[in-house]
Amino acid sequence: MSKYEIALIGLSVMGQNLALNIAENHSIAVYNRTEAKTRKFMEEKVEQQQIKASYDLKELVSSLAKPRKIMLMIKAGEPVDLVIESLLPYLETGDIIIDGGNSHFKDTNRRTKQLAKKGIRYLGVGISGGEYGALHGPSIMPGGNKEAYQEVEAIFNNAAAKTEKGACVSYLGPDSAGHYVKMIHNGIEYGIMEIIAEIYDYMRKVMALEPAQMSYIFAEWNLDFQSYLVEITAKILQKDDPESGKKLINLILDKAKHKGTGKWSVQNALDLGVAIPTINAGVNARLLSALKEERVENSKDFPAPDSVNVNNELIIPRLKSALYFASVIAYAEGFKLLQAASKEYNYQLNYQEIARIWEDGCIIRSAFLEPIQKSFAVDNDLSTLIKSDQFKDKLKAAGADLEEIFTTAAVSELALTALHAASDYFNSLKSEKLPANLIQAQRDFFGAHTYQRRDKEGVFHTEWEA
Amino acid sequence: MSKYEIALIGLSVMGQNLALNIAENHSIAVYNRTEAKTRKFMEEKVEQQQIKASYDLKELVSSLAKPRKIMLMIKAGEPVDLVIESLLPYLETGDIIIDGGNSHFKDTNRRTKQLAKKGIRYLGVGISGGEYGALHGPSIMPGGNKEAYQEVEAIFNNAAAKTEKGACVSYLGPDSAGHYVKMIHNGIEYGIMEIIAEIYDYMRKVMALEPAQMSYIFAEWNLDFQSYLVEITAKILQKDDPESGKKLINLILDKAKHKGTGKWSVQNALDLGVAIPTINAGVNARLLSALKEERVENSKDFPAPDSVNVNNELIIPRLKSALYFASVIAYAEGFKLLQAASKEYNYQLNYQEIARIWEDGCIIRSAFLEPIQKSFAVDNDLSTLIKSDQFKDKLKAAGADLEEIFTTAAVSELALTALHAASDYFNSLKSEKLPANLIQAQRDFFGAHTYQRRDKEGVFHTEWEA
Repeated sequence: MSKYEIALIGLSVMGQNLALNIAENHSIAVYNRTEAKTRKFMEEKVEQQQIKASYDLKELVSSLAKPRKIMLMIKAGEPVDLVIESLLPYLETGDIIIDGGNSHFKDTNRRTKQLAKKGIRYLGVGISGGEYGALHGPSIMPGGNKEAYQEVEAIFNNAAAKTEKGACVSYLGPDSAGHYVKMIHNGIEYGIMEIIAEIYDYMRKVMALEPAQMSYIFAEWNLDFQSYLVEITAKILQKDDPESGKKLINLILDKAKHKGTGKWSVQNALDLGVAIPTINAGVNARLLSALKEERVENSKDFPAPDSVNVNNELIIPRLKSALYFASVIAYAEGFKLLQAASKEYNYQLNYQEIARIWEDGCIIRSAFLEPIQKSFAVDNDLSTLIKSDQFKDKLKAAGADLEEIFTTAAVSELALTALHAASDYFNSLKSEKLPANLIQAQRDFFGAHTYQRRDKEGVFHTEWEA
Repeated sequence: MSKYEIALIGLSVMGQNLALNIAENHSIAVYNRTEAKTRKFMEEKVEQQQIKASYDLKELVSSLAKPRKIMLMIKAGEPVDLVIESLLPYLETGDIIIDGGNSHFKDTNRRTKQLAKKGIRYLGVGISGGEYGALHGPSIMPGGNKEAYQEVEAIFNNAAAKTEKGACVSYLGPDSAGHYVKMIHNGIEYGIMEIIAEIYDYMRKVMALEPAQMSYIFAEWNLDFQSYLVEITAKILQKDDPESGKKLINLILDKAKHKGTGKWSVQNALDLGVAIPTINAGVNARLLSALKEERVENSKDFPAPDSVNVNNELIIPRLKSALYFASVIAYAEGFKLLQAASKEYNYQLNYQEIARIWEDGCIIRSAFLEPIQKSFAVDNDLSTLIKSDQFKDKLKAAGADLEEIFTTAAVSELALTALHAASDYFNSLKSEKLPANLIQAQRDFFGAHTYQRRDKEGVFHTEWEA
C-alpha cells in the first residue's frame, strides 16, 4: 500500500476545509481527537478525494511517507504541546511537524528548539482566509526550518490562493517568522475591522442611513479598495433575518469577542517599543464593547446629544477618504512593527513578499497591497509607509477630509477610537516637534531622570526648584 | 551594642533619601554594592542621624534586631533576585525582606512564594514621590505578608507623607497587591503627563503662547486641581536656562523615555481584558516621540498647515475643562483596572483607601482624589468613576468643551493622542450601542465565530453568502 504524503490532525472547520483543499493534489491522512468528528467528516464531506481517516496516532504516522509531514490544525496553547508529546514516540529524525494554528510566536520558538534537539523539524505556519480560504485557497505564511519547508513547498503552493504573481505563500524566515507575520496580519485585521465599524456607526448615528443604503456605499467604494473586509461588510448590511424579515445587522448584539492575536500584537509591540495605536484601538474597542450591560446602564445617566445636520452628499466622499486614510495607517503600523521584529528576532523579512502573499486568500487582502509592494520594492527598509510616494499625497489630502468627520462626531458624542488613533499616529509621525520635551522635564523634575538638549550633546539634569 | 531596627540596601538617590527619612525616627543600617557610594553618602549626607554604614552583607544582617527587616531599594529585575540570593545565607525564619522598587508584580508573587518556603516573609512595597517624596514623605503602597507588615508599620507610618486623614500608607493586600497598585499609579501618571503635554502643545502650536504665559495659566488652573504634575509644569515653564537665558523648556529634546511600569500596566490590562486607552496613549505617545530623527525627516514631506485663529480668552477655560475631563478619565481607567485585578488576583483592594494614600507624597496627588474617595465610600464596587455623582455632570459639560479643541487641533494637524483617547473612552462607556454588532457579523462571516442577538438568547451562525 502506498504511503500518504501528509497528515492533518484536528478536524475543526478550518482543518476539514484545509484537508479537502490539500486532497485535491496530494494524498492526505486525517485524525481527530474525537473519533465521531472524523467519521462525520468522512461521511459528509469526503467523496473521492485521496483522504484516509485514521483513528490511532501510531497508525496515522506509520501510514505516511518519510520524512513524515504532520500538520496540526488545533487550538493554540497547551493542546499543541500535548499532541506533539503524544506524536513523539512514533517519529524519526528528520520528520516534520507543522503547526498551522495561531500559536504565540514565543511558543513556536520554544517548540522549534525542543524538537530540534530530538531531530524533529518544525514549521510554524500562519494560515489566513477563514473557512472559505482554507477550502479554496488561503494565504499561507510559513516559517521555521528552511530545508523542511522545501519538503512541503509543493503541497503549500498547490493549496494556497493564486494571483497572477503566483501562489500566496512564501517562506518568510526562520523560527517563528511565519507565526509572527500571521499575528501582525491579524493585528491589522483588528484595526481595519474597527475602522469600518466606526464608519458604519457614523453612517448610522450621524447620517441616519439604513443598512441597505450603507451597503450600497461600501460596495461602491470597494470598486477602488478591493478590500475583502469592505466587501463582506456590504454583504452583511444587505442580509435579512429570515424569521423577522428585518436587517440582521440590527439584531446582532454589539459585544465583540476576541482571540489572542490582536492582544499579542499590542503586547509584543510594547516589548519592542513600537507604537501601533490604530491596531491597539481595535483591541481596546472590542474590550469596551464587551461591557454591554454596563454601557446600557451608564447611558441612562448621559442622555444622547441633539442630532447634528450633515450634508450626506458631501460627507460620503469624506468617509471614503477616512477609510482609505486609516486603512493605510493600519498597514503602516503593522509593517513598521514587522521591521522591528525582523531586527529583534533575526527573521530577515521581505516586506514586498509579505504584501504579495496577502493579496489573495487572506482577510486583509485589498488593493492597498499593490502600492505597499511597490513601496518596499524601492526600499525594503523604508521607515514608514506614510512617506512612500504611493501614499504620501493621498494621505495629506485625506487628513483634511477627516476634519469634518471628527467635528460632527464630537458633537454627536460618537467614539471614533481607531480613526482618531490613526490620525494622531500620522500627525505624530510627521511632527518635527512633539511635546515630549515637557515630559522629559517633568521626569527630570520629580525623578532626576535627566534629559537631552536640542542645542548640545550630552545628558543634563536641572535643579528645578533652585 | 544595640541592634538597628531596619536595613536599607541600595543607595541610589531614592534609597539615600528614604534612608535619611527613616533615620529621623528609627535606627537604620545601610549598604550599597559599591562601597564608594556608601562612603560618599555617609560623608556628604549623614550628620547626626542614627545611620550606620555597612560594607558587608553578613555584618549588615547581624547588626539588625530580630526579626530582621531588610529593605531593598534597587533596580527591578534580576538585581533583586541576586541580592535576595546573597542575603539568604544570613537570614532566619521570620525575617522580613521588603522590596521597595518598581518590581513587576508577577516577580513579587514568585519571590513571595519562594521565600515563604524558606520561612522568610516578603513585602512588595510601591513607593512614589520621586526624590523629594523619598526624603520628606512618600506615598507608600505596601502589600504582602500581613503579619510582617505589622512589624514595619510604625517605620512606614513615620516615613510616609501625612495629610489630616493620616499617613499616606496603608496595607493594601496580600502578595503583590502593593506593587500592582504602584504599577497602576504609574500608569495613571503616564496618562496625566501626556494629557498635560498635549495641552501644552496646543497652547504652543495653536495659540502661539510663550512658556511664561502658559506657566501662568497652569498655575492659575492649579488653584482648583492641586495637582502635583500641573504644579511642576507651571514651574518648568518658568525655568530659564542659566547659560543662554532662554526658557529651558524650549531647549529640551522632545524624545521621551520610559521605564517598565506604563508598559506593564497596558500589557496586564490586556491580559485582564480591561481597556485603559488614555494610559495606553501615554505610553504610545512616548514611543512615537522617541523617533525624533525619523519625525524630522518625515516633516519635510508634510509641510505644516496654515495657522488657525482661536480666541484665546474663550479657549483657555475649555483647555482647563479638557485637563479636568481627561484627568478624571485617566483615574477612572486606572481604578477600573484595579477592580479587575483585585478580582483576578484576590487582592481585596479598598479603593477609597488607595485614593487616600495617593493624596500626598506621590506624583499623581491632586484634588481629584477627594471626590474619588467619596465615590468609593458610597460603593467600593462602583463600576466606573464616570457615573459617580462626584464627576458625572462636570464630565458631561466638559465633553462639550472638548469639541472646539478637537476641531482646531484637527485643522492644525496636532496629535491629541491622550485627549482623543479619553474622549472616546468616555463616549464608548456611555454608549448604549457600539458598532461591535458589525464586528461580530464580520467574524461570523469569515470565521464562523458565531454571534449573540439582541432579541433572543442563544448563539447564532449565519450562512452569509447563501
